[in-house]
Amino acid sequence: MGEKSFSRKEIEGLDNRYRAQLINSLSGAKSANLIGSINQEKQTNLAVISSVIHLGSNPALFGFIQRPTTVERHTFENIIQTGFYTLNHIHTDMYKAAHQTSARYEREQSEFDAVGLTEEYKEAFVSPYVKESHIKLGLQLEEVVDLKINGTKLVIGSVQHLYLPEGIIKSDGYVNLAQANAVAVTGLDAYNSLTALERLSYAKPDQPLINMEL
Amino acid sequence: MGEKSFSRKEIEGLDNRYRAQLINSLSGAKSANLIGSINQEKQTNLAVISSVIHLGSNPALFGFIQRPTTVERHTFENIIQTGFYTLNHIHTDMYKAAHQTSARYEREQSEFDAVGLTEEYKEAFVSPYVKESHIKLGLQLEEVVDLKINGTKLVIGSVQHLYLPEGIIKSDGYVNLAQANAVAVTGLDAYNSLTALERLSYAKPDQPLINMEL
Repeated sequence: MGEKSFSRKEIEGLDNRYRAQLINSLSGAKSANLIGSINQEKQTNLAVISSVIHLGSNPALFGFIQRPTTVERHTFENIIQTGFYTLNHIHTDMYKAAHQTSARYEREQSEFDAVGLTEEYKEAFVSPYVKESHIKLGLQLEEVVDLKINGTKLVIGSVQHLYLPEGIIKSDGYVNLAQANAVAVTGLDAYNSLTALERLSYAKPDQPLINMEL
Repeated sequence: MGEKSFSRKEIEGLDNRYRAQLINSLSGAKSANLIGSINQEKQTNLAVISSVIHLGSNPALFGFIQRPTTVERHTFENIIQTGFYTLNHIHTDMYKAAHQTSARYEREQSEFDAVGLTEEYKEAFVSPYVKESHIKLGLQLEEVVDLKINGTKLVIGSVQHLYLPEGIIKSDGYVNLAQANAVAVTGLDAYNSLTALERLSYAKPDQPLINMEL
């Protein structure tokens, strides 16, 4: 297969939509989550997001990137208002409904109703979870870091509650996401299923890697 | 399947290793990249990393999370010294070698040699690419953002050069990573292959989603 190259100048000269597709594809596989939120008037919101990353385990912290002008604006406002939100993993039976949440609905329209996903409230946590998700996290907003370089924000939250199927948690704490039919996003709009290949032991110099429980 | 739940307090009370496995699993699928770098003495380094995220397309920016005390420390020092580094996508034929770069090698030991991957230099760019990777990016360091909440750093770079197989770039700029045998990391140490399910059109209220070229 021939190799195609782009210099910085060539990237800058591309059509905007083409560049967005190309560059969004090149970080590699992305997590696929729905952010559930609610405002002080009890109006709920649901937004698909592919930028959730692990920031730390002790305390358990996750971040996501808030772009300057996106349809997730309502979600961000809700998070600021209440200080809480949920992350809900997207699986193979719900990615179409999840993707549809990215449409520009009016503020009064809950994406839950519009796309046919179900609000679920658990243990007095204020924000709605997505009933159809297998893996659900309830987070408290900890910090919003402004990234001055391009006007995006890194939104950091700490895990308050965590729900997942017992059978996919292995004896050492590893969670087999493929067994929960997790999907990965590639680019802006493609959904992929996962097939677990192998789990490899903690690497040490001059020692062979061994397989761990998948 | 029964549901298992953890409160914040229960997460805090877990064994450290169990908690690291559990919480690292719960952001969802992660990108799988190797960072190539070199210092002023021409000592090269190679580090596997699963936290690369897309930050913007115009300019083309990617970030990764640098933890306070990790084996990628040499890599971070190299990036600060030279101001440049490479990102190289990991595919199904090289994930074992990629994982082995996480062993604590001495500073004088290049991970390229230790794990059997090949340095490649292109167009006078100072940092080494990984010859075996299909998708390679040459980046210039733009900013290091300290995340005070847990001592990690968000390292931001801009794309200077980009190389990928011509056949996986679709007519609108989308790149089919599954066709390049891309892998996704789950948890700390599991490698998964991708199967592209569907590409969905830009969502609009009250309009059905249509399939796009995969």
